[in-house]
This record gives sequence, C-alpha cells and structure tokens, in this order.
Amino acid sequence: MKRGTSRDIRTANRYEVLRQIIASSPTSRQELAAATGLSLATVATLVGELLDLRMITEVGFEDSAGGRPRGLVAVNASGGALIGVDIAETYVHVELFDLALNVLARAEENMRPGESRPEQVVGHVTAAVGSVVAQAGVEAARVLGVGVSVPGQVDRDTGIAEYAPNWDWHDVPLLDLLSEHIAYPLYLDNPLRASAVAELWFGAARGHGDAVVVNLGTGVGAGLVLGGGLHRGVSNSAGEWGHTTLVLDGRLCRCGNHGCVETYVGALGIMQNLRELSPQSPLLHPGDQTATIDALAAGVAAGEQVAVKVVRDTARYLGAAVAVLVNVLNPEVVVLSSWVAARLGEPLLEEVREAVARHALKRPLAASRIVLSAIPTDPVCLGAATFALEGALQRVGQRSTKRATPARSRTAPAS
Amino acid sequence: MKRGTSRDIRTANRYEVLRQIIASSPTSRQELAAATGLSLATVATLVGELLDLRMITEVGFEDSAGGRPRGLVAVNASGGALIGVDIAETYVHVELFDLALNVLARAEENMRPGESRPEQVVGHVTAAVGSVVAQAGVEAARVLGVGVSVPGQVDRDTGIAEYAPNWDWHDVPLLDLLSEHIAYPLYLDNPLRASAVAELWFGAARGHGDAVVVNLGTGVGAGLVLGGGLHRGVSNSAGEWGHTTLVLDGRLCRCGNHGCVETYVGALGIMQNLRELSPQSPLLHPGDQTATIDALAAGVAAGEQVAVKVVRDTARYLGAAVAVLVNVLNPEVVVLSSWVAARLGEPLLEEVREAVARHALKRPLAASRIVLSAIPTDPVCLGAATFALEGALQRVGQRSTKRATPARSRTAPAS
Repeated sequence: MKRGTSRDIRTANRYEVLRQIIASSPTSRQELAAATGLSLATVATLVGELLDLRMITEVGFEDSAGGRPRGLVAVNASGGALIGVDIAETYVHVELFDLALNVLARAEENMRPGESRPEQVVGHVTAAVGSVVAQAGVEAARVLGVGVSVPGQVDRDTGIAEYAPNWDWHDVPLLDLLSEHIAYPLYLDNPLRASAVAELWFGAARGHGDAVVVNLGTGVGAGLVLGGGLHRGVSNSAGEWGHTTLVLDGRLCRCGNHGCVETYVGALGIMQNLRELSPQSPLLHPGDQTATIDALAAGVAAGEQVAVKVVRDTARYLGAAVAVLVNVLNPEVVVLSSWVAARLGEPLLEEVREAVARHALKRPLAASRIVLSAIPTDPVCLGAATFALEGALQRVGQRSTKRATPARSRTAPAS
Repeated sequence: MKRGTSRDIRTANRYEVLRQIIASSPTSRQELAAATGLSLATVATLVGELLDLRMITEVGFEDSAGGRPRGLVAVNASGGALIGVDIAETYVHVELFDLALNVLARAEENMRPGESRPEQVVGHVTAAVGSVVAQAGVEAARVLGVGVSVPGQVDRDTGIAEYAPNWDWHDVPLLDLLSEHIAYPLYLDNPLRASAVAELWFGAARGHGDAVVVNLGTGVGAGLVLGGGLHRGVSNSAGEWGHTTLVLDGRLCRCGNHGCVETYVGALGIMQNLRELSPQSPLLHPGDQTATIDALAAGVAAGEQVAVKVVRDTARYLGAAVAVLVNVLNPEVVVLSSWVAARLGEPLLEEVREAVARHALKRPLAASRIVLSAIPTDPVCLGAATFALEGALQRVGQRSTKRATPARSRTAPAS
C-alpha cells in the first residue's frame, strides 16, 4: 500500500527546499522556512544535506533587523550537470543543464519516418548525449544523471518502454539498451510526467497542491500534480486522458478505440478537423503536422475564417475534455503544454477557456485557472532532467537511512 | 499550498492505526506496526493516545514465541457513539454507530416531492437524530459527532450546501440551521466523499493507495481515494464525474449541460435508456425510479430480453465513462456503490467489466479490479459517521499541539 511514510515526507521536503532555493537564490534558512512552511530546524537539516552534496553553497550573510546576520545559501550551479532527453515521434532533443537548471548545451537529432527501431533510437540518444557533454565540457563524474522521456506507457522501475503506440513498441528494455552506451544513472518516464514535473518545479504548477498539465502534441495526455506531488497511479500509467472517449463511436484512434480525445485535439486530429471543414484548404499540408499547425497559427493571426473556425472547433472538443479534468480533479491550475499548444497559443487558450466554462460545474470552474505553459525551453527535456535531479536527491536519502527501498534507477549511482 | 506536514502525517497515521484496530481487534502493537508499516514506537504513541481517549482498551495479553507476552488492545465499542446522516432526494436515513461502527439504531424519514425547503429537511434530520439517540439510549455526552451528507457541492469548512441541483439549493447554511437543534459536533460533506471514506475505512478501498468509488443512484459521481487518502480537490468539489461529457451534444442534464454521464447511467438515465428501447415496456414505472430499477433487476434475473438489453446499453455507457477514470487515475480498484449498483448487482458488474475492457488502455486496465461495494448497510451513513470519527481524532491533534489549524467542524467540541 502506498502511504505517506516519514521517509517519503523527508524526500518531498528535500525537493521542496531545493526547489525554493533554485527559485530564489540567494536565500536564508529563515526565508526558506517561511516559504515552505517547514520548521527552521528541518530546513537547517535539509540545507546541511544539500551543502554536503555541493548542490548549494554558502554565499555570505544578510542583515536581519537587529538580530544576528543570516547566512545565505544559493544553488551551486556548477556543482553538477543534469541531462534531459525528449524522445518524440520525429526527433530526439537533448539538453544539458547546470544545477540551476540553466541550459548549457543542446543537441537535436531528426528521425526519419520508419526510423524507429529501438537500436536506431538508442543510437540517436547516445550521439546527442555525447554531443551535449562534449559541448558543455563537463567532466563525466559531474553528470548526476540522465532523464529519458519516451512516449507511451513505461515501467520506470524496470526501465522498460511497455507500449509506444506510434512505433508499435512492446516491452522494449530501453534503459538496458541505453546503459550499454551511457554510463550515467538513467531514469525513464514519459512526456506527460516529464512536463508535469517541469511545471511542478519551475512552472505554473509550482506552489499548487493540485494541477493538471495538458500535453497537446501528436500525442495527447495529462500530467497530474495532486496533493503537491506527481500522481503516477498504481502502475505509473495515470494521465492517459488522451485515450478517453470524447465522442462515443467517434473517430478511430491509433490505440484501437473510437472517439478518443487525441483524435480531435492532437495534431493529427486538428488536421482532420481542418480536412472536414475545408478539404481543399491551402492550410492543409498532408503528411506534415508541423507545417499544418504552423499554417493554422499564421491563418488565425491573419484573421482567416477557416483557420479561426478550426481553432474554435478544436477548442470546443478540448473544452469538453478539459472540463472532465476540472470536474473530476478540481485543480487550481490547468496548464496547456507541448508544441501544439505553444504554436496555437493565446487564440486557442481563449477559445478553450470559453468552452470549458460551458461544460464545467461552477464551483470547480471558479477554482481553476487555465494558462499556457510559460516554460521557455522544451518542458519535456527540463522535466526529464528534473527526474535525474530527483533521483540524485533520492539517492542521498538511501545513503542516509538503513531502510531498503526499491531502486528508482536502472544503474548504480555515479558516485 | 497543500503539502504533507508532519501534522497531516500524524493525523493520517492515527486514522490508519484506529482503522487497523477496528478491523482486527484484538490486536497487538507489534501486529499493528507490521500491518501499517509504522515503527513500533510510533504505534505505541498512537495507541497511547487512543487509550487516553477511551476509543480503545487493553484486553489482556497474547503469548509471543519465547518473548514477553504482548499486550492486546481492542476497539472500545461502547466508548462513544457516532451518527451518520444520509440526506437523499426522497428520504433522510440516520444511523447511530458504536465505535466499532456497528449500527445500534436506525431512523428513516420519507420526504415527499416538493418537501425540500431547507427548514423541512432540517426538521426531518433533527427528528431522526433524536430518534436514534433515544432508541440506542446513549448519553448525549457520549455522542462524538454527527456526519451529514447532502447531495451536490458543499463547503465543509463553512458548513454551507453551496449547490444541490435536485432541490435548486444555493448557499444554504445547513450546519448553522442544524446546530440550532442539534448540540453535537457537526460535519458536512457529500455522498461521493462519504461513500469513498466508507470504502477507505471499511470496504474495498481499504489498504489501497488509489481507488475510485463510483456512486450510481439518482445522482452519479465518483469518490476518489488517491495516495491513501480522500482527494478533495482545491475547493472540495473533486469527483463530479457524473457531470462530465459522455456524449457531445447529448441528453440535457439537470446541471444545464448536455450529454453528462449521469443522464445515461443515473436512475433517470437508465429509465430513459429503457424508454428509448421499449416505450411501452411494463418494466417502466413513470415517475418512480426505484420501482423501475427493481423491475429491471427482476427482469434481468428472469432473462427478459428488454431488461437484459437495457442493462447492457447502460453498461456500454458506464464502461466508456469508467474507462475515463481508469485511464486518467490508474487506480487499483473501482468500487460500484449506491442503490442502483446494489440493485442491478452482478449482471451490471459483468457487463461493465466487458465494456471497460473495450475502452481502457491495457496497462491501467490490467492494474484495476472492478467490484461491487461489499458494505452491507448504507455506505453514505457509514461514511458520514466516519467523518465524525475523523473529526473526533482530529480534535485530539488540535488539543495536543500548539499549532492553529482551521476548524473542520462548525460547532465547539462536545467535550
């Protein structure tokens, strides 16, 4: 049974304190206690652990009114490096971050259609990881870990990509394959949870107990932040909202069901919305999702009726589907993330807000804000790197307590 | 921000230890530690608190192999009384429980259609509460509290029934009205959360981190147990799954939207399913939900084609809607509760399992069991009484710590 042990709490508090330090360096233990609600004694212990790990450093003193000068701490940006890997349908993005989660290096590999065998993907990831480490010039020993996001359903404990509908992958031992080429600790998860954890640490979900991060890309899903932490479900597959039924007996989905949310609001679904409205539209770039979504965004900006109508139709579907999340989960904030949301931007957001208001009950509606993700870089890379950061913080806990816990990473700690 | 403070943990642990003692009296501290995963020292402290409150008693010793005899504790059934109130569309049920949650007395008041003004409902509740206390012959001082469940959206902190669609109630200060007649501590919530907490403490959700309790009655909704506790959402309105869109532009719902789950699988929705299939069916009792559902249940038992088809159609809608909960939340168990589920029973359950399997993704589907509620009495009364028990346990915490917390009950503690 999953329950809040004191160990879970200690790990969550460690995350919270580091999050706060990253957000507001330099800061004092007193400010951290005020911001987190933790006792000063607890904050002092956690700050001590982070200092020992060189994740943060002492950076002097500030005057406190009349009292003793307060010691200030700040994130030790160069104390380690984290790598985030975003494996998507058509590309692999890799970013290397310092401990303040600044991007130090980027690499991108394009994958041609059909180029989706596991060993091909592993080759691209290996090349891109090598590239960012070389570009940034960091020592191997300073890389604390590599977070890897792969679409579909993943078993993070075993590192297996259980099912990726886009590539028809079944039970691919991705971390085992990667660990033959990459010596750093590896952490596997999927883009829903990566983008949710990015918003939780650095974005619109920060400081909110209950938040939903709606990913709109080729695939569609929702990362859930509930009770202040990521909600994974019993088999790490929560958030598969893209494959819930929006239209009974509706469009055929690649998951095999009919009428899934994804078939109406994913990139391919939006193309279909356009095709049904205006089959000969010059906005339609058959076989090219990115070009079509870009053309729609440009069309809306130029006030083209067909483009405006397609965004409205899409928002109508999306509003009904987002209202499900609002009514069922009653979150404080709903964040629209991933590339389709980023490109369609404010016009989509406004239409979605109106559509959600038509479908959601008043009380949960009044409690929820709907916003676009404000993370300026690839949130999936950032979130994947955050999993590596969390993994490093969790290993601290494993060293400092006697109690055994299941391994969260497929490989041995780097240290 | 909602976060796991050590105080929340202590309250949750207190619940967990008492739950375990209720489930397995007599039991030892060692067994409790093993069952809950808490340390023996923590268990000993919590057991001490419960002994001080006379909620449990020492009941002798058991031999342990070679070691010191272990002290046994058991719930002190007569140490207090709890009252649960289930205010529904057509009736008020009230049950009085001892601390082992055995029913000591019951009262039921019928409400005629139209008899739904707040003061009328308050009159029925007051009469029924007086009746159960008199029947059971308990002293007023021993009543630890009264949990009140009212349909719709409630603000438990202020005790206001914000919106009850069935009666068109808006912002009714129900606990203030009740407290003019009832001197015990009062706790307000709704049937979704009452039935969920009943399953969490005493039913199929016990011992599971993530569970969904689907309420099928006149109203429809889902009580959510996530991370081992009740998920309330930011404004205590999570679980309004009955008012999520199942059929875009579908049947008009009493909430004002179209195509809500409730309009297809609530008692009135099932009547409509029957009417559309066979407008002249003798199974249909216009204006009488209970008689119609009973007739359908009898018809299915007798193998009548129309009845079988209606249950199958209903399960087809319900399966798509339950699959949303399975895909989004990835729970270990889905419990079908409330009177429609109880009356249609196994035939509905089997059809629902098949329908969910057609709509849910394989990984979350494989992790979820779907079961009927096994709670033999009214789960809403039991859950409402459990809120009163939780309230009494929480007041312990408030007395034993210096830190202020918002009042969870509208009235002063009885003690």
